[in-house]
Amino acid sequence: MAEGNPNSKTRQHILDVAKILLSETNKDALSVAVLCERAHIAPSTFYYYFTSFADCLAEADRQRYEDLVGAFEERIAAIERALDRGDPQLFYATVREQMTAAWSAGRADARYSLIRTFINIFDNKSQAARFRSQLDAQFDRWLAAAELAHRRGWTVDGATGEMVVLMFWAASVGQFILPVATRRTMAPTAVATFFMEILTGAVGPESSGEPESEPEVQRATPSAVATARAGEES
Amino acid sequence: MAEGNPNSKTRQHILDVAKILLSETNKDALSVAVLCERAHIAPSTFYYYFTSFADCLAEADRQRYEDLVGAFEERIAAIERALDRGDPQLFYATVREQMTAAWSAGRADARYSLIRTFINIFDNKSQAARFRSQLDAQFDRWLAAAELAHRRGWTVDGATGEMVVLMFWAASVGQFILPVATRRTMAPTAVATFFMEILTGAVGPESSGEPESEPEVQRATPSAVATARAGEES
Repeated sequence: MAEGNPNSKTRQHILDVAKILLSETNKDALSVAVLCERAHIAPSTFYYYFTSFADCLAEADRQRYEDLVGAFEERIAAIERALDRGDPQLFYATVREQMTAAWSAGRADARYSLIRTFINIFDNKSQAARFRSQLDAQFDRWLAAAELAHRRGWTVDGATGEMVVLMFWAASVGQFILPVATRRTMAPTAVATFFMEILTGAVGPESSGEPESEPEVQRATPSAVATARAGEES
Repeated sequence: MAEGNPNSKTRQHILDVAKILLSETNKDALSVAVLCERAHIAPSTFYYYFTSFADCLAEADRQRYEDLVGAFEERIAAIERALDRGDPQLFYATVREQMTAAWSAGRADARYSLIRTFINIFDNKSQAARFRSQLDAQFDRWLAAAELAHRRGWTVDGATGEMVVLMFWAASVGQFILPVATRRTMAPTAVATFFMEILTGAVGPESSGEPESEPEVQRATPSAVATARAGEES
């Protein structure tokens, strides 16, 4: 039961490698040997820090879960700060930035890392219940933010704004289904532009006039998307 | 090795129950005992039809995969038939119908069935490669259909049409992340209306005037979504 210093850098390095392996493949395919090879450590080093492989994987899973929840939390908190300041330019810039970051997280990895993390969480009953309620609470904050922005005249009709928010999040998680060949057209900034246009009504009849500092969104025609895409491809 | 008649109804019943169990939970949690109890059969019946539990699960997985590919195939084929007839009303009605069906398939199940099927497929290398290429080929057909409809003046700018198609599919798969509490606002018909409005430009400045037979889409304001949602809730 000899567990080395839990704050050790080596220990966290082992956990980081375990997190990468968990994002790439099924647990069944993993072993202490595979982990040690990838982490460039000896099995004796592994057993200095962990009592069992199962313990190590469980802790790595927990960390991936916390990383995911933390990232979601930071995103909505940034939007709320922008709303607090009552500054539409900052609000648009922040929403765009968070959308781009969220989309990047969903596509970052060709091996379905994000989706695998979700499945692992949902397979653990106590984690699943806690995660579900944290996720739902964050969606409530997103929807409240969309509603508040609408009341200030910064975004389209509240019902449409709600739909855009939910669709963006669902798509950012489900994007792994999209064809490899069209990945370029799904560049994070192009996707953010597309959703920003719907959210701000730039493609709608009641344009709320997003400020000049956001030129891509300001264009009142769908061709802004084409322009943004062309920019991505260069 | 005594395998009963492969066309037997009992054999398919066992496979159907196995497919349900696979959609609900991890393989690790399944056993012949669990399967027999759920299927209301004796273990001896199971072993009359299958040589092993692993064989049964592998066949059930294969069937789920074929069901999924077949459903995708039928959807794009229906859209292509509507385009072939050169009838915009039929085209709009078919796209809406297929969107509603696709969204229903993604949400049908609270236990992440669809997403679990994807992960199982992607974990099997040979299945994953075949599935990926089938999926990519079907997306090519969707994008070609969107482009053709655009050239006929039935839908918005081709680039936006492409983005709407891809976003709809990504969201339909990723919708499992959405909060339980807002599921009602995400009713399949409301979601289809939302995407149809973007696709036909009903929320845009260049409305292509979807025919009268599609009243929900025809409204030129985002509040059509609110109306559709209110309808869902009754």
